[in-house]
Amino acid sequence: MRKAGVTKNLARLPVVILMDQDPPRQDTQRSLDDAHILIEHQMVDVGAIQQRAHRRNKHDVVGSNQFPHLAFSFIPDPEDLVVDSNPCRATGLILTFELIPVAMCEVGRKSTPLSNIFYGYIRGSGRLGKSGETCLAVIVPFESPSDASIDRLVALVAADMERVNATILSRTGSEVTMIPEVANHLISSGGKRLRPMLTLAMAHLAGYSGDGHIKLAASVEFMHTATLLHDDVVDESEMRRGKLSARMLWGNEASVLVGDFLLGQAFRMMVEVGSLRALDILSAAAATIAEGEVMQLAAAKNTATTEDEYLAVIRGKTAELFAAACEVGPVIANRPKEEQTACRSVGMNLGIAFQLVDDVLDYGGKSAKLGKNVGDDFREGKITLPVVLAFRRGNDVEREFWRGALERGEISDGDLDHAVGLMTKYRALEDTINRAQHYGAMAVDALALFPASPMKNALEQVVAFCLARTH
Amino acid sequence: MRKAGVTKNLARLPVVILMDQDPPRQDTQRSLDDAHILIEHQMVDVGAIQQRAHRRNKHDVVGSNQFPHLAFSFIPDPEDLVVDSNPCRATGLILTFELIPVAMCEVGRKSTPLSNIFYGYIRGSGRLGKSGETCLAVIVPFESPSDASIDRLVALVAADMERVNATILSRTGSEVTMIPEVANHLISSGGKRLRPMLTLAMAHLAGYSGDGHIKLAASVEFMHTATLLHDDVVDESEMRRGKLSARMLWGNEASVLVGDFLLGQAFRMMVEVGSLRALDILSAAAATIAEGEVMQLAAAKNTATTEDEYLAVIRGKTAELFAAACEVGPVIANRPKEEQTACRSVGMNLGIAFQLVDDVLDYGGKSAKLGKNVGDDFREGKITLPVVLAFRRGNDVEREFWRGALERGEISDGDLDHAVGLMTKYRALEDTINRAQHYGAMAVDALALFPASPMKNALEQVVAFCLARTH
Repeated sequence: MRKAGVTKNLARLPVVILMDQDPPRQDTQRSLDDAHILIEHQMVDVGAIQQRAHRRNKHDVVGSNQFPHLAFSFIPDPEDLVVDSNPCRATGLILTFELIPVAMCEVGRKSTPLSNIFYGYIRGSGRLGKSGETCLAVIVPFESPSDASIDRLVALVAADMERVNATILSRTGSEVTMIPEVANHLISSGGKRLRPMLTLAMAHLAGYSGDGHIKLAASVEFMHTATLLHDDVVDESEMRRGKLSARMLWGNEASVLVGDFLLGQAFRMMVEVGSLRALDILSAAAATIAEGEVMQLAAAKNTATTEDEYLAVIRGKTAELFAAACEVGPVIANRPKEEQTACRSVGMNLGIAFQLVDDVLDYGGKSAKLGKNVGDDFREGKITLPVVLAFRRGNDVEREFWRGALERGEISDGDLDHAVGLMTKYRALEDTINRAQHYGAMAVDALALFPASPMKNALEQVVAFCLARTH
Repeated sequence: MRKAGVTKNLARLPVVILMDQDPPRQDTQRSLDDAHILIEHQMVDVGAIQQRAHRRNKHDVVGSNQFPHLAFSFIPDPEDLVVDSNPCRATGLILTFELIPVAMCEVGRKSTPLSNIFYGYIRGSGRLGKSGETCLAVIVPFESPSDASIDRLVALVAADMERVNATILSRTGSEVTMIPEVANHLISSGGKRLRPMLTLAMAHLAGYSGDGHIKLAASVEFMHTATLLHDDVVDESEMRRGKLSARMLWGNEASVLVGDFLLGQAFRMMVEVGSLRALDILSAAAATIAEGEVMQLAAAKNTATTEDEYLAVIRGKTAELFAAACEVGPVIANRPKEEQTACRSVGMNLGIAFQLVDDVLDYGGKSAKLGKNVGDDFREGKITLPVVLAFRRGNDVEREFWRGALERGEISDGDLDHAVGLMTKYRALEDTINRAQHYGAMAVDALALFPASPMKNALEQVVAFCLARTH
C-alpha cells in the first residue's frame, strides 16, 4: 500500500516522532493521548542526535521515567509502508500526517547508557517495516526536563517569585470585590508567570541587589493580565487557560475595566520603584503592545498579509512585553547600555519564538492541554504565520479556500482539517517552527554576553522550553 | 383651570425660565427648540437677581444677541393659570413640568440698562395671566458668557492649548492608520478639553514656567479619551458627542485597543515630563477611575444604591481625573503641599458637580444638543443620583416601577416620561442640581487660597459654567 502524500513528504520528513513527557502507561493509546509532536526532520539525522547528546552533561542523565518517551514511526522504504487507517486520532497535529504510518508502540526499557545515548527496544503494536514485531530504536532525551524546561529558572527565582506573588495578591485587592474576583480568576489560573520570572532573572543576571525588581515583575504580570482580559473581549474568546474566560463569567464590561484597573496598578508600582528609565521602557511597551494588537486587527482576515507584516504584529503584541520585561532588569541595576540591549534582545527574540510556537499549537494542540480550543485562530479568521506560509505556497484553488474561510468566515465541518492538511502539504507548521528556532537561537546568542552561570544556563533552557512547550 | 401639580410646585417653583443661548429667530418655536431649562427657584427672587446682577462688571454687558434669551412663564396667581396643552414638547425637561404654563414668546428688546438689569417687553404668543398680550419682564443675563463660561479660561490658556493640541495630534500618530482614525474621531469631535485646560490653568495659577504642563495636559486628555472609548464598549453606547461612537464604526475591538494605546501614550508623555510625583498622581488616578467604573458596574441595576455609594462611584469614575488634572499643576511647579491639596480639591469637587449635572442632563437634555440620547442612563439601568433620590422618596408602587425598569429592564413606551415625572414629583432633578451646587461652592472655596487673578476668576467661571452648561 502506498499513498502519494507519504512519498511527497519523505524527502524532508522520513520519521515522525511522537514525544510524550509522561511516563508510559499500561495503555499505550493513553500515552499517545498526551503526546506532543515535534516535526523536525533534523532530528532523524543520527549524527546530529549523537552530537547533541554528547554535549549533554553526564549528571543530566536521570531515570528513564523522567525522560520523554518517544514513539517512533519508521518509514524505511516507501514500498514497505503500512498505513494505519486511524493513526492516533486523539492528537490534533497527527491528523495532519494522516498519510504517514504511525506505530502505536510501547517503549521497552532494556536500555544501556552508551555515551549518553539510550538504546531501547520498541515493541510495536502496529507494524514497523518488514521485520514486524520489534525493532531497535534510539531514545534520546534531548527534550528532557533538564534541557528544555523552566524548572531551573523557577527554582532560581523561587524566593523572589514568592514576594512577587504576594505583591500581585495585595495589589489586586480592592473594596470593589469584583476586581480581585476577576483579576484572580485569571491570575491564579495557572499561567507560568514566565514574563515576571524573566524580569527577576535578568535583574539577577545583572547583579541587581535592590527590591525594585519585585514590583517591576508584578507590574509586568499585571500588564500581561490586562492584555489577556482585553484580548478576550477583542477576540470574543470563551476559554482562557482551560477555564471559561472572565468575560464569559463577568461580562465584557468587567474584563475591560478590570484590565484598565490592573494597568493602572501596574503603573503605580513602577512609579513606586522610581526608575524613570524602567517606566519609560514599560510605558512604551504598553503603547506598542496595543499598537501591535490594532495592527493585527487591521490585518485580520487579510490573507494578503506578508510574513514581514505578521512579524511586525507579533513583535508588538507579544515580543515587546518579553523585551521590556527583560530590559528593565539591567536597567534598575544600572548596568551598561550593552547589557540592557542584550537582555532586551533575549526577550524580543524569545517572545517572537514563543508566539510562533503558539501559532503552531493553535493548529495542533489539544483543548484539554492547551486550555484553549484548537482552531481558534482559524475560526476567528486570524492570520498567523502558518496561514501566511500556506497561503503564499498554495495554488489558486487553495488560496480561494483560505479567503473563503478567513476573510468571509465561510467555515463548515472539516474545513479546519482541510486547513491543517494544506499547512502540512506546504510545511507551513514545520517551517513556522523552523522560524521559531531561528529566533530562539538569536535569544540564546544574545545571552552570550554574560559569563556562564546557573541563571544563564536556566535562561537558555527557558528558550528551549518555549520552543518545545506543549502548553 | 387649575391643576394639582402646579400648586404643589408653586411654593418652590413659581417661575420656569426657558433659557436659550441662541439669538431669537423669526420662528419663536425654533428658539425654544434649543432651549435649555434651568430649574432654580432661587432665580426668581428678584432681589437675588438684582444682587447678582449688581456684582457684574459693567463691561460685561454686551449686545443682547450675546445674551441668553429668556422666555418667561409667569404664574401670577394659581387661579389665573392658563395651561398650554402642549407646552414646548420639543424640550426634554419641560415635559416634566407639563402642568406649568409656558408662554411661547419672543423677546422684544426695547430695553434700557438700569444698574445692569435689563427690562424688556415680552410679546407673548401664549397667554400670560390676565393682562394678555404683552407684559413687562426682567431679562437678566446672569447666565451670560461672562459669568458662567469657559471662554475666559479658553482665552487664557489658548497659546498653551495650541501646543497641547499639536502634542495630541502627534502622539496619536502611528503607522497603524486605524489608531489615528479612531483616536481622532473622538478627540476631534468637539469635546471641550476641559480637563487638559484645568491642568494648564493650575500650572499657571501655581506660577509654573516650564514645559511639562503641556505633555501632562495631553496625557490627561488621552486618559480621558481612553476612558470614553472603553466606556462606550462597557455601556454599548451608540452615540458619543453627537456622532456615532467609535465602536459602532470600528467595532468594540478597536475601541478597547486604541484606548489601551492612548493610555500607553499618556504614560509615555508623563514619563518624559520626568516628575515622579505627577506620575504617581496620574497612575493612581488611572487605577481609581477603573475602580470607580467597576464599582458602578457592580452597583448597576441595584436600586438599593445609597447616595453615599453613588458618590463613591462618581468620585472614582469622574472626579478623580479632574482632581489629578488639577493637582499635577502645582506639583510640577514645586509648590507647597497646601496648594497641591487646594488644586486637587478644586478638581475633585468640580468633577463631582460636573457629573451630577450630567446625570440631570441625561434625563432632560436633547439628543441633538447633548450628542447623546436622552434617557440613556435609564435604558441602561444606570443608577444615578436622580434615581437614588426618586427611589428613596417614592412609595412602594413607584419603587416597584424603578425596580422593574432599572433592575429587570422592563421598559415600555412612556416609561421614561413616567420616570422623569417621578423625579419631578420628588424634586430629584432639582435636588441633584442643588447637590451639584454644593460641590461647586466647595470648588470655588478651595480656590480661595490663591490671590485674585484673571486665572482664578476664569476658574470660578468654569465652575459656574459646569453647573449651568447645556452640553
